[in-house]
Amino acid sequence: YTRISELKPRVLESKYRCALIVDSDNRLISIVTRTDLLHPISKKVILVDHNEISQAVDGVQEAHILEIIDHHRVGDISTLMPIHVCNEPIGSTCTIVAQLMFLHQIDIPPDIAGLLLSGILSDTLMLTLSTTTDQDKEIARKLALIADIEIDKYGKELLKASINIKGKSAKEILLHDFKEYSLGAKKIAVSQVMVIDKEEINAKEAAIMLEMGALFDEKGYDLVALLITNPLEQGEDVFVKGDKRIIEKAFDVVVQNGKCHIPQTLSRKKDFIPKIGYFCTTS
Amino acid sequence: YTRISELKPRVLESKYRCALIVDSDNRLISIVTRTDLLHPISKKVILVDHNEISQAVDGVQEAHILEIIDHHRVGDISTLMPIHVCNEPIGSTCTIVAQLMFLHQIDIPPDIAGLLLSGILSDTLMLTLSTTTDQDKEIARKLALIADIEIDKYGKELLKASINIKGKSAKEILLHDFKEYSLGAKKIAVSQVMVIDKEEINAKEAAIMLEMGALFDEKGYDLVALLITNPLEQGEDVFVKGDKRIIEKAFDVVVQNGKCHIPQTLSRKKDFIPKIGYFCTTS
Repeated sequence: YTRISELKPRVLESKYRCALIVDSDNRLISIVTRTDLLHPISKKVILVDHNEISQAVDGVQEAHILEIIDHHRVGDISTLMPIHVCNEPIGSTCTIVAQLMFLHQIDIPPDIAGLLLSGILSDTLMLTLSTTTDQDKEIARKLALIADIEIDKYGKELLKASINIKGKSAKEILLHDFKEYSLGAKKIAVSQVMVIDKEEINAKEAAIMLEMGALFDEKGYDLVALLITNPLEQGEDVFVKGDKRIIEKAFDVVVQNGKCHIPQTLSRKKDFIPKIGYFCTTS
Repeated sequence: YTRISELKPRVLESKYRCALIVDSDNRLISIVTRTDLLHPISKKVILVDHNEISQAVDGVQEAHILEIIDHHRVGDISTLMPIHVCNEPIGSTCTIVAQLMFLHQIDIPPDIAGLLLSGILSDTLMLTLSTTTDQDKEIARKLALIADIEIDKYGKELLKASINIKGKSAKEILLHDFKEYSLGAKKIAVSQVMVIDKEEINAKEAAIMLEMGALFDEKGYDLVALLITNPLEQGEDVFVKGDKRIIEKAFDVVVQNGKCHIPQTLSRKKDFIPKIGYFCTTS
């Protein structure tokens, strides 16, 4: 299909005053005239749990952004109209969504409460990560009551199911929780994977490194990193492709054979990105 | 003085491992070593009532932004850490500040309530502008109770005092409420002035146009516009320097001798910037 943003200059420059819309069999469906293209036509979107162009759906820059609800760093989205933005440095965007529902006295059905609670427990590793706030804990308790769930028992089942990498390919592991960032002039990608048994990852190291290299070349990143976290242990193993000096300077470590160990457990948004961001934007 | 951001590369490249700090008489005050410069040193700021780099204090890009409280479009500020952002499309940032104080049960002293109320009445032209919401009205009522003020009587006095341009120079009128915007690749400046008697402005037209031209040349703007609003009438007179086609296309008017009339009363943030922004970012 042709995007409206591509169609517009072509109709304007053409000697014809309109464009014909056809289906896959080249049958006429409709006609678009210059008048139709004169005024802004935008999809309406609300950005939830992200606010960076590189992490949003394609074409977000032509969309009409109505609202942003998030808990990450402030990214590079800008709007022409004043809009609602609610960004809070807390454990989970699900906490913010639930807070807004409680504030506006909207009934939360048990299944929705269960979904929101799952988001909180998964984002905060069962309320243990450094990003966890009292608000996350309080909202989690309230949601657990509504959903009639025991946080401890359910949380363990949830994490166990979500960190199971058996049967997953190297590419699936790498892309499961993969995010792109523009930091200063650098284009960075940081993926994160949870494992209880690090041997499962080590067995796939060569294949994962290969996938990281392919992505690095294809997308022109300056750095691709994979954070490997065992929620039961302190510290992170990190696989690195690209400008390893950024990691070495930021964490005072040495990267050897594309790998290093950082002794603290890191939140990607609260610890990892700010640290490497500082070296990307000042050097 | 030398900024830390300028000092850093000079100390790093120099064969000396430190820099000497002297006062205006060249007397030694202190020494800065490389170790001091190794870690981020940033001022802490909270952006209130704005969120664009071009409208913020100099050096904001090196500062540590803790929080943003605003009611404008989402601009071009980005942070490395997750932070609090509260942006609402309502009449006045003072309404948001008061709401947060009420929410957290912080006592508002009568003089602070009066200041916040003044901000709301001034931003919303006594709760009449199109940006005014029910929240602004409700908070204004609450603040008026605390400050023991009659909104109508006080509001009229306030507006009368604030729109008095007698004795002001052309430059003072132009810069009183002057804002800069980056819209697409264009650099735009839009000033706004309230008058009851438009003759007062017309008498100074030549001098104001001269100041607009000087600013246009000096700062390399693509467009400088001055919106002249009479709160008792519909519509805006606009003085224009620069790419007048942006205004002509956005509002379907003709600019003659650097002037035009737009029949609706416009909020700069809610009506004017979105309209011209659309033509700046798509053409």
